[in-house]
Amino acid sequence: MSATDRAGATLTIDLDAIARNYATLCDRATPARVAGVVKANGYGLGADRVASRLWKAGCRDFFVALPEEGIRLRRHFRRYPPAGPDGGAEAPRIHVLCPMIRGIEADLVAHDLIPVLNNPAELALWAAATARHGRLPAALHLDTGMTRLGFIESELDMLSEKPELAGALDIRFVMTHLACADLPEHPLNEEQRRLFSAMRDRLPAPLRALPASFANSSGIFLGPAFHGEMVRPGVALYGVNPTPSRPNPMAQVVQLQGKIVQVHEIDRGRTVGYGAAHPVTRKARIATVPVGYADGYLRALGGQGHCAVNGVRVPIVGRISMDLTTLDVSALPEAATPIGTPVELIGPTVSLDELAGNAGTIGYEILTGLGRRYHRVYRTRSEAV
Amino acid sequence: MSATDRAGATLTIDLDAIARNYATLCDRATPARVAGVVKANGYGLGADRVASRLWKAGCRDFFVALPEEGIRLRRHFRRYPPAGPDGGAEAPRIHVLCPMIRGIEADLVAHDLIPVLNNPAELALWAAATARHGRLPAALHLDTGMTRLGFIESELDMLSEKPELAGALDIRFVMTHLACADLPEHPLNEEQRRLFSAMRDRLPAPLRALPASFANSSGIFLGPAFHGEMVRPGVALYGVNPTPSRPNPMAQVVQLQGKIVQVHEIDRGRTVGYGAAHPVTRKARIATVPVGYADGYLRALGGQGHCAVNGVRVPIVGRISMDLTTLDVSALPEAATPIGTPVELIGPTVSLDELAGNAGTIGYEILTGLGRRYHRVYRTRSEAV
Repeated sequence: MSATDRAGATLTIDLDAIARNYATLCDRATPARVAGVVKANGYGLGADRVASRLWKAGCRDFFVALPEEGIRLRRHFRRYPPAGPDGGAEAPRIHVLCPMIRGIEADLVAHDLIPVLNNPAELALWAAATARHGRLPAALHLDTGMTRLGFIESELDMLSEKPELAGALDIRFVMTHLACADLPEHPLNEEQRRLFSAMRDRLPAPLRALPASFANSSGIFLGPAFHGEMVRPGVALYGVNPTPSRPNPMAQVVQLQGKIVQVHEIDRGRTVGYGAAHPVTRKARIATVPVGYADGYLRALGGQGHCAVNGVRVPIVGRISMDLTTLDVSALPEAATPIGTPVELIGPTVSLDELAGNAGTIGYEILTGLGRRYHRVYRTRSEAV
Repeated sequence: MSATDRAGATLTIDLDAIARNYATLCDRATPARVAGVVKANGYGLGADRVASRLWKAGCRDFFVALPEEGIRLRRHFRRYPPAGPDGGAEAPRIHVLCPMIRGIEADLVAHDLIPVLNNPAELALWAAATARHGRLPAALHLDTGMTRLGFIESELDMLSEKPELAGALDIRFVMTHLACADLPEHPLNEEQRRLFSAMRDRLPAPLRALPASFANSSGIFLGPAFHGEMVRPGVALYGVNPTPSRPNPMAQVVQLQGKIVQVHEIDRGRTVGYGAAHPVTRKARIATVPVGYADGYLRALGGQGHCAVNGVRVPIVGRISMDLTTLDVSALPEAATPIGTPVELIGPTVSLDELAGNAGTIGYEILTGLGRRYHRVYRTRSEAV
């Protein structure tokens, strides 16, 4: 029996759609360079496969969150050296966003990783590593409003006071991160833009002249003032709408298809699922699908969301169980829902963004939570992956 | 550098605590046999390790959700044959809860899996497989109120009408599943008990005499009337409170420890995180921990939960990011929160159940969502695992 048949659901990941989204973002951001953010295992879709496909699409700069993720991605690229339009002469640049902890320096060097330096202590740590490892690459992160990572204004002085620290490094660019880019009218966007400019102006001369990396996915759609020389889209590559108030300009990347494993004909009053949360009083047909919150199909979807059968929306009834979800398929004729009938959980009828909204969250969380029990199928017409 | 240092957080899984919880449940359920539910990869903690430890504690019956999970667990037990008090003479029995789809029969036989039969179609399928494979083991699932899986009343007649189907099989027990066991006062518990008894009475004679399997974790605490001959605890094994209205009788199994990677001193009005959702007007110290919703640290915790530093609760401020969480650590002296300071996400101060409550969900979902970027450490004094 095939793995597709054996799994509770099949997750199809369209790598070519990711490449098309990359091209769309390149068009939008030009002349800025477009990096690919592949942290959190490529937003849950497989950092290796995604990064290789992005490389083929022209991407040369990759961002991960943790050193461990960078190490894995570097190993992948070493095992499967990418052959791009330039014959693979240019090695993929892998940037690590999360601050390093003392002791990790040799790992970063060994795996040719570029840390994004987030604070004075990290800068000092990385500069000290040059004594053993020679001149090292880095990026500089300025915090303009996230209050999460990056140098804040009061920490900028040390860059001028100890110019030998940054001087010891090959700092490639200066970046910041937008907090409200998905809300184009939010005043913080313009505040961050102004503060980024002001903070860069306060940097010592060699750093002041460095290229800027500014926008995330949504930021790209705020216009050129938010691009800098390199943009860093993540979620838009994977098909989430970076412009929530307007139609989605991105191609859909994931489809999730389960199947009906049981249908219950109800002809008397009873309840569905845990907590007896869903009473059924009329005649109804309840179908069970072997996907649950253990698969990242969030429990918050209980009684809130829907799936689709043959393009017809069918409501989720009762709570989501760990391994199972129950649907009211009464709207469909009985002959349309035999055991084995495919059920769309994410697809042309129920988009990723809609599913996320029903769960009270955002597409990012749905993607990164996609479960490990799904049978995963990668689609690409590109020969080499 | 060690994996612990390199990861954003370390998840410690106390296998001996699982064994202690198993013993506690055995005491409660005696004389009923106690199975171990290890579906969803052992509630996220690693089905192989958990099942082996449960075996050493005396468990012989295991339940998984999907055939694929059963196949993996059987392979594990074949690779590492368990040596129990009986010298491993008795093979682990692995039951598959989810209905089988036509085509899976040979896989179940090859891996010595026992399907729980949920409906007439499945019974017929498994009975037909005996033509090729000889007499096959099974269990029978009656739906007494979950409206999810199992024979409903109107489907019982076929068991009498076609006695040759069940007759071809070695049916070991009859089970049902409680919908409201965590709510001892809920009338559905008693209704399910009565209906289970009535439905069993309606079974043809050979099936009527079979042992019953009734309670899940919480059901064990409803008392002997809900036990039958075998109980099937899952979540209580892993430390979640099966009696939410009373103190938790189970030992804690998981600890999750992150660390501070950056501290921001705020001395002017600004906001924290995405959406500028958390305004800070007074002087404050914001610490960043490299754990986010991509690690299953649910986004719903933003502004709702807390962590602990040295036993002191510190509130989560702003939204949870994909890879990062921000805490207000102003309540602690500055010297107590240097970079590298351990942060308890789940542990003696913040229990799994409390964390789940803060996220608006249940411990089950937190467990099964525990991320793959954590460094996992298994603790056991038991020699063989």
